[in-house]
Amino acid sequence: MTERFCARRIAIVGLGLIGGSLARALRTDTDTAEIAGCVATDADAVLARELGLVDLVTTDVAEAVAGAEIVVLAVGIDAMGPVCRQLRAGLADDAVVTDVGSTKAGVIAAVRAALGDDAMPRFVPGHPIAGTEHSGLRAGFYGLFAGRRTILTPLSQTDPAALARIERLWQAVGARVSRMTPAHHDDVLAATSHLPHLLAFALVETLAAMAERTEIFDYAAGGFADFTRIASSDPTLWARIMLANREAVVPALERYIETLTSLRTALQDDNEAVITGSFGRAKQARDRFTAAAGSCGAR
Amino acid sequence: MTERFCARRIAIVGLGLIGGSLARALRTDTDTAEIAGCVATDADAVLARELGLVDLVTTDVAEAVAGAEIVVLAVGIDAMGPVCRQLRAGLADDAVVTDVGSTKAGVIAAVRAALGDDAMPRFVPGHPIAGTEHSGLRAGFYGLFAGRRTILTPLSQTDPAALARIERLWQAVGARVSRMTPAHHDDVLAATSHLPHLLAFALVETLAAMAERTEIFDYAAGGFADFTRIASSDPTLWARIMLANREAVVPALERYIETLTSLRTALQDDNEAVITGSFGRAKQARDRFTAAAGSCGAR
Repeated sequence: MTERFCARRIAIVGLGLIGGSLARALRTDTDTAEIAGCVATDADAVLARELGLVDLVTTDVAEAVAGAEIVVLAVGIDAMGPVCRQLRAGLADDAVVTDVGSTKAGVIAAVRAALGDDAMPRFVPGHPIAGTEHSGLRAGFYGLFAGRRTILTPLSQTDPAALARIERLWQAVGARVSRMTPAHHDDVLAATSHLPHLLAFALVETLAAMAERTEIFDYAAGGFADFTRIASSDPTLWARIMLANREAVVPALERYIETLTSLRTALQDDNEAVITGSFGRAKQARDRFTAAAGSCGAR
Repeated sequence: MTERFCARRIAIVGLGLIGGSLARALRTDTDTAEIAGCVATDADAVLARELGLVDLVTTDVAEAVAGAEIVVLAVGIDAMGPVCRQLRAGLADDAVVTDVGSTKAGVIAAVRAALGDDAMPRFVPGHPIAGTEHSGLRAGFYGLFAGRRTILTPLSQTDPAALARIERLWQAVGARVSRMTPAHHDDVLAATSHLPHLLAFALVETLAAMAERTEIFDYAAGGFADFTRIASSDPTLWARIMLANREAVVPALERYIETLTSLRTALQDDNEAVITGSFGRAKQARDRFTAAAGSCGAR
């Protein structure tokens, strides 16, 4: 067992699924003297206090981050820039800033524009690969990060001590931390997360537009329910993630449309060998992935 | 509670996921004096006896169905015709034949060609909407059909008494039975089962062909695992189902490719309104479906 993670004050900007779950994990798994949380509205502040998510709740970002040694940006990717411009007034010179955004190149550009190049050594871009289809202040729960991966995408100028501190924070809440470049992160996530979300939304929309739609949903079986669970995710949040990462998402989507088009041709031509070959390669890859991840680790 | 389902002898041709699960359910949930099972090879017969799936195991279809009042065809859709030609020698004149095939128009044509028009009044085409990604003699389990739907697609000449008997059989093992025409069944299943399987296979194949494939599978999160579970299904079985139902699958696939192509254009054009609108309609439909089905009923 490594030494328990200690902090004087951590500020979490945004207490939704990720921010709220992180607050709960920091309370239970670390010795953090004070956790400050920032929410968007007075109504959210009342709810956050009722739920007891953090020690101090405010709608003033500068107040939330004042005196914090670590600031976690847990807002939607489009809000990262605006939030950073607001928090400058309260941010300590030696505070380490990190984020949980689903895309990295765009968030890094927004944070750099808002905080300036001088702040970049103490910015550690990050992304916990964890989530559910739910969002909002009531969506968070203890344990969300346990056994899941968190990817950190440090910049060339990132201070190694700042990087190590954020790495320990995520390890303390149970995450398996790895590092890669921002561009590589965006490519990998386009394929494993953004594209699947797009496909699930598109499938449900396609079926909902079909004439037999009521019956279609009545007779949908287990595979369909699993396949489309992520289509219950927040539409605006995911639209923005895909737009922010469209340089990686569009090529992956185009490759996928090509695969589907080949399969359509094979179906029309009654070409069983092509279809069985394609499905067989998929099953092999999926089975290898499942065997490597373990039946629970894959979730 | 209705009267318990009784039968003297039921033959199940094929003891895979569906046939094996039905054998277990008949034993537990009905008063069936004898269950005969037919398997393809001597090795399978040895295994079926070891597993104790049925009372009598044979590789001779005519022997299996001799004296059976109900014959359940639980083989792959391509084997339905050949199996029916073999079983004619043993089939009693008053036996009711039913099947569990995932497509109905094709199976009905194959059974009609093999058994002849005169046998059609005692043929009740059916499809339990239940399954997992596993197959084979070890894949079946008690409870597979509980709370799940079974669709029966009677023909105009189907004997109402035969239909009622098969309906009671499925109800006895816990299924919710409904009826529709074979063509309508094939359209609905193309959308809710065949197309999602094709999309999942195609996604995994597309990702497996990408350069970063090792990492892609390493970083795949919960949504991806759920989304692609069905890509671990039997490739040949699913290729044949989709080919058998290609008249319904191809148009559904084409509509889906159109939806994806529109989304690609919207991404390229940075058109957030189109993407959010599409995802929003999907989420609404998915949430309605989930609310109607209940969180477990949807599986």
